[in-house]
Amino acid sequence: MINGMMMHCNLNITSIMQHALALYSEQKIMTLKSDGITTHEYTYEDAFARVAQFANSLDRLHVSKGATIGTIAWNNYQHFELHYAIPCSERIYHTINPKLPHEQLLQIIISAQNEVIIVEQDCLHIIEDLYEHIQPFLKYLIVLGDVDTTLESPLEFMFYEELLAIESTDYDWPDIPEQTASGLCYTSGTTGAPKGVLYSHRSTVLHALTLSMANVVGLDENSCIMPLVPLYHISAWGMPFNAVLCGSKIVWPHSFAGKIEKVYNLIQTQAVDVSMAVPTIWTALKNHLQENNITETTLKRAISGGSAASYSLIESLSRYGIALENAWGMTETSSMGACNRIDNLKSLPKTQILKCGRPIFGMQMRLKGKNNELLPHNGISEGLLEIRGHNVAKSYHNNNSGNQTTDNTTNNTKVWFDTGDIATIDVRGYMNITDRAKDMIKTGGEWVSSVEIENAMLGHEKVAEAAVIAANHPKWGERPLLILVTKPTTHIEHVEIETYLAHKLHKWSIPSATILINEMPYTGTGKISKKTLREKYYDYFMED
Amino acid sequence: MINGMMMHCNLNITSIMQHALALYSEQKIMTLKSDGITTHEYTYEDAFARVAQFANSLDRLHVSKGATIGTIAWNNYQHFELHYAIPCSERIYHTINPKLPHEQLLQIIISAQNEVIIVEQDCLHIIEDLYEHIQPFLKYLIVLGDVDTTLESPLEFMFYEELLAIESTDYDWPDIPEQTASGLCYTSGTTGAPKGVLYSHRSTVLHALTLSMANVVGLDENSCIMPLVPLYHISAWGMPFNAVLCGSKIVWPHSFAGKIEKVYNLIQTQAVDVSMAVPTIWTALKNHLQENNITETTLKRAISGGSAASYSLIESLSRYGIALENAWGMTETSSMGACNRIDNLKSLPKTQILKCGRPIFGMQMRLKGKNNELLPHNGISEGLLEIRGHNVAKSYHNNNSGNQTTDNTTNNTKVWFDTGDIATIDVRGYMNITDRAKDMIKTGGEWVSSVEIENAMLGHEKVAEAAVIAANHPKWGERPLLILVTKPTTHIEHVEIETYLAHKLHKWSIPSATILINEMPYTGTGKISKKTLREKYYDYFMED
Repeated sequence: MINGMMMHCNLNITSIMQHALALYSEQKIMTLKSDGITTHEYTYEDAFARVAQFANSLDRLHVSKGATIGTIAWNNYQHFELHYAIPCSERIYHTINPKLPHEQLLQIIISAQNEVIIVEQDCLHIIEDLYEHIQPFLKYLIVLGDVDTTLESPLEFMFYEELLAIESTDYDWPDIPEQTASGLCYTSGTTGAPKGVLYSHRSTVLHALTLSMANVVGLDENSCIMPLVPLYHISAWGMPFNAVLCGSKIVWPHSFAGKIEKVYNLIQTQAVDVSMAVPTIWTALKNHLQENNITETTLKRAISGGSAASYSLIESLSRYGIALENAWGMTETSSMGACNRIDNLKSLPKTQILKCGRPIFGMQMRLKGKNNELLPHNGISEGLLEIRGHNVAKSYHNNNSGNQTTDNTTNNTKVWFDTGDIATIDVRGYMNITDRAKDMIKTGGEWVSSVEIENAMLGHEKVAEAAVIAANHPKWGERPLLILVTKPTTHIEHVEIETYLAHKLHKWSIPSATILINEMPYTGTGKISKKTLREKYYDYFMED
Repeated sequence: MINGMMMHCNLNITSIMQHALALYSEQKIMTLKSDGITTHEYTYEDAFARVAQFANSLDRLHVSKGATIGTIAWNNYQHFELHYAIPCSERIYHTINPKLPHEQLLQIIISAQNEVIIVEQDCLHIIEDLYEHIQPFLKYLIVLGDVDTTLESPLEFMFYEELLAIESTDYDWPDIPEQTASGLCYTSGTTGAPKGVLYSHRSTVLHALTLSMANVVGLDENSCIMPLVPLYHISAWGMPFNAVLCGSKIVWPHSFAGKIEKVYNLIQTQAVDVSMAVPTIWTALKNHLQENNITETTLKRAISGGSAASYSLIESLSRYGIALENAWGMTETSSMGACNRIDNLKSLPKTQILKCGRPIFGMQMRLKGKNNELLPHNGISEGLLEIRGHNVAKSYHNNNSGNQTTDNTTNNTKVWFDTGDIATIDVRGYMNITDRAKDMIKTGGEWVSSVEIENAMLGHEKVAEAAVIAANHPKWGERPLLILVTKPTTHIEHVEIETYLAHKLHKWSIPSATILINEMPYTGTGKISKKTLREKYYDYFMED
């Protein structure tokens, strides 16, 4: 075969920045600042001038090419800038969730070997707490926000703004090969140690480009998007790249995504028409609209991910002219891998609206049966969901265990990623997750491992058998529900369990209720039948 | 630097087909058949079953991997199928314009060394005429359309439909490396021999993906697109790939794009909402609507390329609810490289609406001044337009002369393509071509070389100096206008010139009028000032 004779131009994040500067330099980015009251607004041109300044800072500090730079930060313009300055100067941004338990934070930072950490002032205590364990590799600590000369810390640190102030707004951007690593994000969605997904410039650009398709996110210059999902959750589902590629106005809500009055005010004052968040936040918005007898909002599309939104929530929001669109993705799929655009709620069957959605271009999906056979895409056959695509992780950073399966059914040896989910796919490509092979619980946008809770409970002297399931919850989407068989002649109260688990698990992992039963249901292979428990207790919190 | 750990999935045309089959198998493709009356309709699923059949045919015939397969065909479902069957089975489709003069057709076919040619029944005479020159390399001649047992030819041929009939609808599609050549199209836009642009799977997929952005073509499943631009013009501007990627309904008008009543009927009966063509066709549509007192049409967007549409045409069509959007591109840019989406005609200045448009993602543009210096993008500075991008030709097939310039101004050595156009670019990225460095004329969608006509005229005994310019024309967009200085004491009439050129040039290259002048205007460097002539005579045909 001969090759085409077209130019090879690298699909790198720099090319998104340069495209946006050529077309959309006057577009606005607005941030609600840390006080929750004052705002910061500037243009793409201003932003990328500062991006160049910070790239110069990193060079001046001799931060290694290829170094991972940890960010512990909220949704604001500074964190946004880091998503360009770091990868476009040949380093790797590594977004860290400040809400993780310290033990996990430490595992993640040690695994990533962050040469630099960039941190909000109100998160500085995290690094102070962990410092003795990470000081062997940490060279610089940089603090975001405005310069505050009263800020005190036992650690040496520099202010981001002071670093920028002395630098040139020009930078001779290198043409980075597209396979180069650009970003790192750890998934805490499993029972073992957190696993790092190492995105490349290519995967990031192709993902941003695919999200730009009219039937996916489909932003344009007239859009105003406010990502409520945190930047530490897969870079707010890739929005720093997708929104800029499309030339949209961006509104950053800082750490106030959970303060629904502030969220609503931002929507209305900035004319936000698209936003993305977990169902918990959409439920809060719905309640806010209802309780305040609000009938109008500029918001037209509420993209919802993390867990499935209920039909009643979708229907409620539609009355305000807001289309709630389910989306599906994982850290391992660069965030959104499928979406369910709803043109017209009334014209579609309810079952279709509730599905996870259709794969974006470049995301291949297949179902595997019990004997590894491929199952038909008929909307009925349930099988293990395997995926493949240029936005899908091939393996993990600093970890040899992947979720790979190899396909030898054709003459092309291809690697597929095992999602651990049980799903159906219909003839129009709509994928729906029907069961979880790995028993993960998504609560308020965070993953909780049922196995981790079960293991902790099995250490309790009164417990014979323990099972944790995800149960439907009016506020949190889902909450862990603990189901126990106690040892003979013993009894246990839920408050005892809360106390027992308080030092073992993160607050949100502690089950919200405990049910005592006499005997666990079992599957044919002798495992506890979570499916049976879910069928019986899934609506436990709804019946309260 | 370290690489990301994401899967490498090839950006090949096969991946577009597989995505469309997973999501849009039920979508329709409709064709007006060769009689201009009957229609053919089937689904994507039907189409790709036949694509598999023809891929099997090519294997059965032992057509070489990497072979170029010429197509001389109209806009119909069979020609569409070839855009998948050929590249996805590791051959190269080569679209050939049947309207070119035989001499150019021969140059092109010999340059491409077509192992197979696939031809419409009404174009079979072309191959018969050229056969003696191409028979050394031509192995198979395949005839499109329905099987017609009365069709006679001195050449051996097979019917496409008979080949398909015996094949399986399954094919084990190889995972083609993305750099592999997929398609070939010759540009006749220069004075020398036609030059072949060899597209790759990667360039084709990235182009299709970029066109899918909401602010470019932005089709979706609810769109119905009818490409009026022929498939032999850069694969109808890439629509076989872009429309299928987006899951749109496609209407193929066969060879009837110039029959405006048929075009209008197709629009209305099929509910076509987007179409693409040269301004000549949009003018004909406008006239048809006016003359027949039609007030309504389903057409919403008329994408216009090849040459710039006039403001009066844009305004006239807007009264029917049709947005005429200028687009710009070349064979060397995989068709559309810039577009001018008009949201609201009234809100935009006329000068902006008439510009060529803004570069699509991946297309970089710059202006070079007289001393090779880069000029600012201020909307005023005029310079030579150079471009770069993954959809831009690096060099030509079977030809070592490129249009490349090398950029040594930064530490990245990058190759740029010299368009030969003089342009401005403004701060929002709007590019506008203000002059032609190479004096090409676009008439009714076809390129005419002014230099070729001038050279022919200089051979005439009565001619001292000759200049040909593009002049505005109410029907054809532009037509060549010949301006002569005759030798002393001689006189020449336009009819003499028509006769003289009849055997030297293609019909459409023969100037529509001749003006005799006493003295040519000259530039400072002693060249005929085409700019002065254009300023004086550009509206010559409009004043008739």
